[in-house]
Amino acid sequence: MKHYDAQDLENLPSRYRAHFINSCTGFKSANLLGTISEDGITNVAIFSSVTHLGSNPPLLSFILRPNTVKRNTYDNILKMGVFTVNHVNQNFIREAHRTSAKYDGGVSEFDKTLLNEEYLDGFKAPYVKQSRVKLGCEFVNEYFIKENDCHFIIGAIKHIYVDKEIQAEDGWLNLETAQTVCIDGLDGYALPQILNRFSYAKPDENVRSLSDLGS
Amino acid sequence: MKHYDAQDLENLPSRYRAHFINSCTGFKSANLLGTISEDGITNVAIFSSVTHLGSNPPLLSFILRPNTVKRNTYDNILKMGVFTVNHVNQNFIREAHRTSAKYDGGVSEFDKTLLNEEYLDGFKAPYVKQSRVKLGCEFVNEYFIKENDCHFIIGAIKHIYVDKEIQAEDGWLNLETAQTVCIDGLDGYALPQILNRFSYAKPDENVRSLSDLGS
Repeated sequence: MKHYDAQDLENLPSRYRAHFINSCTGFKSANLLGTISEDGITNVAIFSSVTHLGSNPPLLSFILRPNTVKRNTYDNILKMGVFTVNHVNQNFIREAHRTSAKYDGGVSEFDKTLLNEEYLDGFKAPYVKQSRVKLGCEFVNEYFIKENDCHFIIGAIKHIYVDKEIQAEDGWLNLETAQTVCIDGLDGYALPQILNRFSYAKPDENVRSLSDLGS
Repeated sequence: MKHYDAQDLENLPSRYRAHFINSCTGFKSANLLGTISEDGITNVAIFSSVTHLGSNPPLLSFILRPNTVKRNTYDNILKMGVFTVNHVNQNFIREAHRTSAKYDGGVSEFDKTLLNEEYLDGFKAPYVKQSRVKLGCEFVNEYFIKENDCHFIIGAIKHIYVDKEIQAEDGWLNLETAQTVCIDGLDGYALPQILNRFSYAKPDENVRSLSDLGS
């Protein structure tokens, strides 16, 4: 295997290091965050850091980098207190990627891409019409990460919309059936196929396959 | 689409809600964290929350739940200051899942599963021999998440080992070639295939496909 030590990593050209480090922690989730400003200007932006934080209460988290295009998302969330999380589907990965362009604050990515906004059940922030799994979230808290000036944002999941056929009897979502993609690095999009589900692991027992629950 | 509001989510049976909420944020990374205690007892445990935090300096983060089997991992990291992150490969998803069983503190999962430990370049924490992407990390900081008593842990990436054939010319790792899996919910394992890579997005331009870099 090729070995990079700390000095090797520091000596890499910055773009090479960005591609390398962004892909070295494994696959990441692919979500579009939808927000709206006080003036009613909508924003939709792709994020690869949305992660489950807890089920009871239902919480998620994501990372906001300092001083990027994503500041619109940050400002809107702080002002309005709400945002949506919409799964990226294999059918619109190119449009999802295009939301990472640095548009001016007065421009909505919904006008500049083929993504469509929709409003559900009186929730203030826009959902992405094309997504097959959508979450309506309220801002809960943020932690400033002093190591690299990022913000760790926590949201409470208040609404979930899912296509019925992707949910198993035990509540699990079959994200292969949803055609949800994941992200490899800064710019790679991948479509996962479920290999298996396993039973709850106990010491000194083998785990059973639950793949019959997966469809 | 089926709609769950906040009250619906609260009323769900707790196991159903756990499966549902754990899968609703999209696919998650699949990594084995390797640690060692002061007494030399090794530990390896699966985590689905390891995420890229920054490239310069190279940082990653993960979430530790309160009072779980993962406390061995936490105690070892705080005491020894080091841990390893090892990609789960499609060839050993069952063994990886088995590390989530609640073994006693004196027992190493390396002895109870078919996973093998290895030590590289004098680094104190054990790597997983079977992994094709492995990171050696130093503990940097932790943030206590008061919303649900989790710990947000930050690690500095000091060593990376990769099979040569999975790295593209621009530094990006083709995780499909590595056969790295991702996780859907609490117990679903999935194998992603790369669909495409796209160029850096700019306003009012289409993005180009970089799929020729992916192999």
